[in-house]
Amino acid sequence: MISFVNDYSEGMHPKIIERLVETNMQQEPGYGFDSFTESAKEKIRQEIDCPDAQITFLVGGTQTNQTVIDAVLNKYEGVIAADTGHIAVHEAGAIEKTGHKVLTIPHQNGKLVASDVKKYIERFYEDENEEHMVYPGMVYISYPTEYGTLYSKQEMKALADVCHEYEIPLFVDGARLGYGLVSKEADMTMADLAKICDVFYIGATKIGALFGEAVVFTKNNEPKHFMTQVKQHGALLAKGRFLGLMFDTLFTDGLYYEISRHAVEMSQRIKAGFEEKGYQLLMHSPTNQQFVVMSDEQAAKLAQKVKFATWERYDDEKMSYRFVTCWATLEENVDYLLSII
Amino acid sequence: MISFVNDYSEGMHPKIIERLVETNMQQEPGYGFDSFTESAKEKIRQEIDCPDAQITFLVGGTQTNQTVIDAVLNKYEGVIAADTGHIAVHEAGAIEKTGHKVLTIPHQNGKLVASDVKKYIERFYEDENEEHMVYPGMVYISYPTEYGTLYSKQEMKALADVCHEYEIPLFVDGARLGYGLVSKEADMTMADLAKICDVFYIGATKIGALFGEAVVFTKNNEPKHFMTQVKQHGALLAKGRFLGLMFDTLFTDGLYYEISRHAVEMSQRIKAGFEEKGYQLLMHSPTNQQFVVMSDEQAAKLAQKVKFATWERYDDEKMSYRFVTCWATLEENVDYLLSII
Amino acid sequence: MISFVNDYSEGMHPKIIERLVETNMQQEPGYGFDSFTESAKEKIRQEIDCPDAQITFLVGGTQTNQTVIDAVLNKYEGVIAADTGHIAVHEAGAIEKTGHKVLTIPHQNGKLVASDVKKYIERFYEDENEEHMVYPGMVYISYPTEYGTLYSKQEMKALADVCHEYEIPLFVDGARLGYGLVSKEADMTMADLAKICDVFYIGATKIGALFGEAVVFTKNNEPKHFMTQVKQHGALLAKGRFLGLMFDTLFTDGLYYEISRHAVEMSQRIKAGFEEKGYQLLMHSPTNQQFVVMSDEQAAKLAQKVKFATWERYDDEKMSYRFVTCWATLEENVDYLLSII
Amino acid sequence: MISFVNDYSEGMHPKIIERLVETNMQQEPGYGFDSFTESAKEKIRQEIDCPDAQITFLVGGTQTNQTVIDAVLNKYEGVIAADTGHIAVHEAGAIEKTGHKVLTIPHQNGKLVASDVKKYIERFYEDENEEHMVYPGMVYISYPTEYGTLYSKQEMKALADVCHEYEIPLFVDGARLGYGLVSKEADMTMADLAKICDVFYIGATKIGALFGEAVVFTKNNEPKHFMTQVKQHGALLAKGRFLGLMFDTLFTDGLYYEISRHAVEMSQRIKAGFEEKGYQLLMHSPTNQQFVVMSDEQAAKLAQKVKFATWERYDDEKMSYRFVTCWATLEENVDYLLSII
Repeated sequence: MISFVNDYSEGMHPKIIERLVETNMQQEPGYGFDSFTESAKEKIRQEIDCPDAQITFLVGGTQTNQTVIDAVLNKYEGVIAADTGHIAVHEAGAIEKTGHKVLTIPHQNGKLVASDVKKYIERFYEDENEEHMVYPGMVYISYPTEYGTLYSKQEMKALADVCHEYEIPLFVDGARLGYGLVSKEADMTMADLAKICDVFYIGATKIGALFGEAVVFTKNNEPKHFMTQVKQHGALLAKGRFLGLMFDTLFTDGLYYEISRHAVEMSQRIKAGFEEKGYQLLMHSPTNQQFVVMSDEQAAKLAQKVKFATWERYDDEKMSYRFVTCWATLEENVDYLLSII
Repeated sequence: MISFVNDYSEGMHPKIIERLVETNMQQEPGYGFDSFTESAKEKIRQEIDCPDAQITFLVGGTQTNQTVIDAVLNKYEGVIAADTGHIAVHEAGAIEKTGHKVLTIPHQNGKLVASDVKKYIERFYEDENEEHMVYPGMVYISYPTEYGTLYSKQEMKALADVCHEYEIPLFVDGARLGYGLVSKEADMTMADLAKICDVFYIGATKIGALFGEAVVFTKNNEPKHFMTQVKQHGALLAKGRFLGLMFDTLFTDGLYYEISRHAVEMSQRIKAGFEEKGYQLLMHSPTNQQFVVMSDEQAAKLAQKVKFATWERYDDEKMSYRFVTCWATLEENVDYLLSII
Repeated sequence: MISFVNDYSEGMHPKIIERLVETNMQQEPGYGFDSFTESAKEKIRQEIDCPDAQITFLVGGTQTNQTVIDAVLNKYEGVIAADTGHIAVHEAGAIEKTGHKVLTIPHQNGKLVASDVKKYIERFYEDENEEHMVYPGMVYISYPTEYGTLYSKQEMKALADVCHEYEIPLFVDGARLGYGLVSKEADMTMADLAKICDVFYIGATKIGALFGEAVVFTKNNEPKHFMTQVKQHGALLAKGRFLGLMFDTLFTDGLYYEISRHAVEMSQRIKAGFEEKGYQLLMHSPTNQQFVVMSDEQAAKLAQKVKFATWERYDDEKMSYRFVTCWATLEENVDYLLSII
Repeated sequence: MISFVNDYSEGMHPKIIERLVETNMQQEPGYGFDSFTESAKEKIRQEIDCPDAQITFLVGGTQTNQTVIDAVLNKYEGVIAADTGHIAVHEAGAIEKTGHKVLTIPHQNGKLVASDVKKYIERFYEDENEEHMVYPGMVYISYPTEYGTLYSKQEMKALADVCHEYEIPLFVDGARLGYGLVSKEADMTMADLAKICDVFYIGATKIGALFGEAVVFTKNNEPKHFMTQVKQHGALLAKGRFLGLMFDTLFTDGLYYEISRHAVEMSQRIKAGFEEKGYQLLMHSPTNQQFVVMSDEQAAKLAQKVKFATWERYDDEKMSYRFVTCWATLEENVDYLLSII
């Protein structure tokens, strides 16, 4: 049955396989000291117009969030996130596992609002009990968010301004970064993002690679002995060559953006289709995920023909359901979906 | 200047000093294997009518919450608490430091409501992403709460029922337990509490002792090698004899309740006094803490004559302020306070 | 330059690539619920003659050691290992990161000796200060060891007997398991191993896969909510399908053993070659790693023609150097090496 | 029965009780902001001739070691200690609990030798696998050691020199500091110690107080937000006034040294007595602990008349036993002991 459950149902982009086959028997040093990794880093540095960027390739999203946040935070600090943030909800407590609290603030359309963050930090420092509380040591946001929504450049800059006023870094989880940047409603490039935030990652697990997230420290601010901290989290891949190779391929001839664009087009067609039929969408998502509100009956009927994910309760009678596209989504499958709703 | 800032401004009850002097040069084994500790445990077991209770004396509240919660939870579990709970707000992330998330639910008058907890756990187990989330492994409440309010026996039983339906323990933070139990609005004895919950502690730091919290596992459910886990948290006192001696004294001839009663009487007089003068109280507190809403001007004026604590912002113009009494509060000081408000 | 530095310098076995290409666009559920994973598990269960085996595929060795040890140990326990054990030396403190001490015992030829372990545990429980110490909660060994040596079946059984006497599990790190089992000096099958120990893993990162370690709980003893604990360690792969596919391929038609055999043959030729020329070997290794003692001059000269790893200081004048073969080692490269030593 | 089991069998010095009684009802701020604490800090600063010393009073030794080491170390670092060090053996893994490895080096008479430490660190940085290992981030020693032995000033300076060459701090566990400094074989003052090391603590639990360890950062090097980190470890005492009062008393008119001197005199008499009778002592201890080698028969006989501690196995037939004196040891009890051996 055709699946719109998530954006990691298929393998990897054929161009990656191609290069994999070509380079397979080439001997390379382990742990990211290989030639593909070096090349990939250089391409990313050019793409983001940040010649000093410090880049590390990790395997998965939760691993990346855990490793980066733990390496950046001081021991007495926590990380601010939207209450809908991935680290706050769906990472099985991976952040707390490393000793750090996730300090949540109510979301607005899946996003943190700069003025809310400012108020939170101000109140923290005004509190007489400050020293009995967890210091805010970082702000975490997702671009796009867990609900497919996007920060405008101005919104993200405002967050960065608050962060820098309090001398804490802004970290952008880019597990679906490509799907955000190519959206018609995006007003940022990857280079803009790199300038605004202090650390971010370029997700590839969900965008054409088999796995892989490229962590980028943009302000010459990589934590000391970061490689050892990666190892300490069990996150150092022996055959790092493959991470390098995948990112090198994705950042050749704009492949990363090209395949992102396809997914967003497919998603926007799905969005339009549901809206035309009168379905309610949970939020306005200009990226690759759509959250559709349906009754149990509607959902059950549709579930006989295609796969999609149950998301969360909407009200006593309805739930929201997630439909996701990706680089590999077939146009004919989208047509089919639209024909049956 | 007279202080109503907290309930740990004075030393310890004179009867404790007396016994301290008497027994000072007696040689006793360390680490809680002394004769005073044994005697104190026995008295507490009788008081709570639980002959099998497993009791350990620790030094402070945060230490006790951290040690108990960490020892009880499985590694994949977090602890449910009210969003106003001490462990959620004022313990500098001590719970997260041990790798566990505090799962917060909005409070009602400082309390967790059983139906809210039930809904939270139900939704957790209905979620398709359950395995990507932190399992609820315990419910934490304070009696009295951080706002001085009290659970009725029925409310606490309802919480225990939810816990036991899902086979997780109910833990009661009794840092101010005495001040709760002696309140005229309390409908529980310590023995009732011991029957209802799975583990609780009897606070003495704030009730007559120099320090000390008596952890009580009531269902033959003390975690394995609990003493080693106490040591591992840096919480094992070499001269445990003093902890034993203090609790032995407090549980002789009802001293713990007697001195609690005095504090609550003083607090209720303060409450009545403020109400008479038309001040607004944040919540109805029948115990030893009162939270008074005042304008900046009112507060500043009063602060010239007595000490009290700034609590939290009430609205754009007003804050709430905390006035606390304890076993050592002098009646004349209360009279003085009431004369100047 | 030809490299004998390690056994992860090349990509993956061609048969894996083949299946990768074939199945690439097939939609599969994430997180290990795919059909390849199911098939691979079934093949392993048959191979080890353990129909109830609980199997999980993880990405790397340190990650696997960290996740398994942390999930199995109680909070007050540590893990016993040889002082040369990988977890004791070369994992950047990944075990301690999760709160657990590595309790080391001096190695004999890279191995733990059952009688030493027994004495260690006996003395622990005889100690009056037992409760102030870290409880031994598991025994960790590597097969083959970090020095390429092998436990006989009897030696491993003796270790298991000690473990079971004290009711703690025996965990076998099989990062290079294949290279051990196919050795002419091995007297165990994988099924024997599964019977003797409580949990082990089948390493594939170094044996034909791009990455991958198959954790096997053999006594119906998988820790509760193990998947969530995997997630909490950042170790849950979104596209788990690829792990499944790799193991499914390796366990079809004995590929795992076949490619292991090749590596060991190559290594034994290297061993014989060095010995013939009068070089001293650090230990007698019947598997795929050889540790050759050389003077600085000898090493420098050889390093101009082939790559190998500096291992550790042997004495004031000499160091030991590591030469490793793997499934991908070319016979002609071994010939070349032997021609220049 | 008279006990020589440890140095924490009695209560506290009478002068402390006296001041406790005097000041009991005085209202003071909590958490170490009281007037006694301020006064005690000032006296210690004068005693150690270090006007900028940053001082914090904690409750117990393991708690202090855990809090200081965790607050000082970077996340990728471990702490070097003698294999007989208290943190390596008898703290139930409290250091590992915070995520840090204890890196052990074989002791010489209970001490770390500077050249051994230097060699260890040198080899670490020469290792090609450095980034896969735990960075040495601190050196921990005890003065006196766990075996009652003492570092000479030159030995300690040599250790500090190694530390400073590698830019890591030297931390001195002074749980029994007074008993070391007053020894006839000591060639250091507390001011010397403060100059040489980077952080140390002045133990009082075992020297006249009911509990208490004064942590002293001597180089303006207190970790940021140390108070919050103390709270996070559950180590912040509400009634910190009592810690202040005890240290204030001990550092008035040289009481700390005076009572230390008594204990060491008593211990040296015991030492001489055992030696006269031909007993073997495990090490030469010029402080307050003596380790006597006895046969089972000898020990059993003596144990009928006085209490002492079983220490560790000496050989197949003999064990060593510990006899400890303290500020409270009665001369007549020592006479009695010497009369029965």
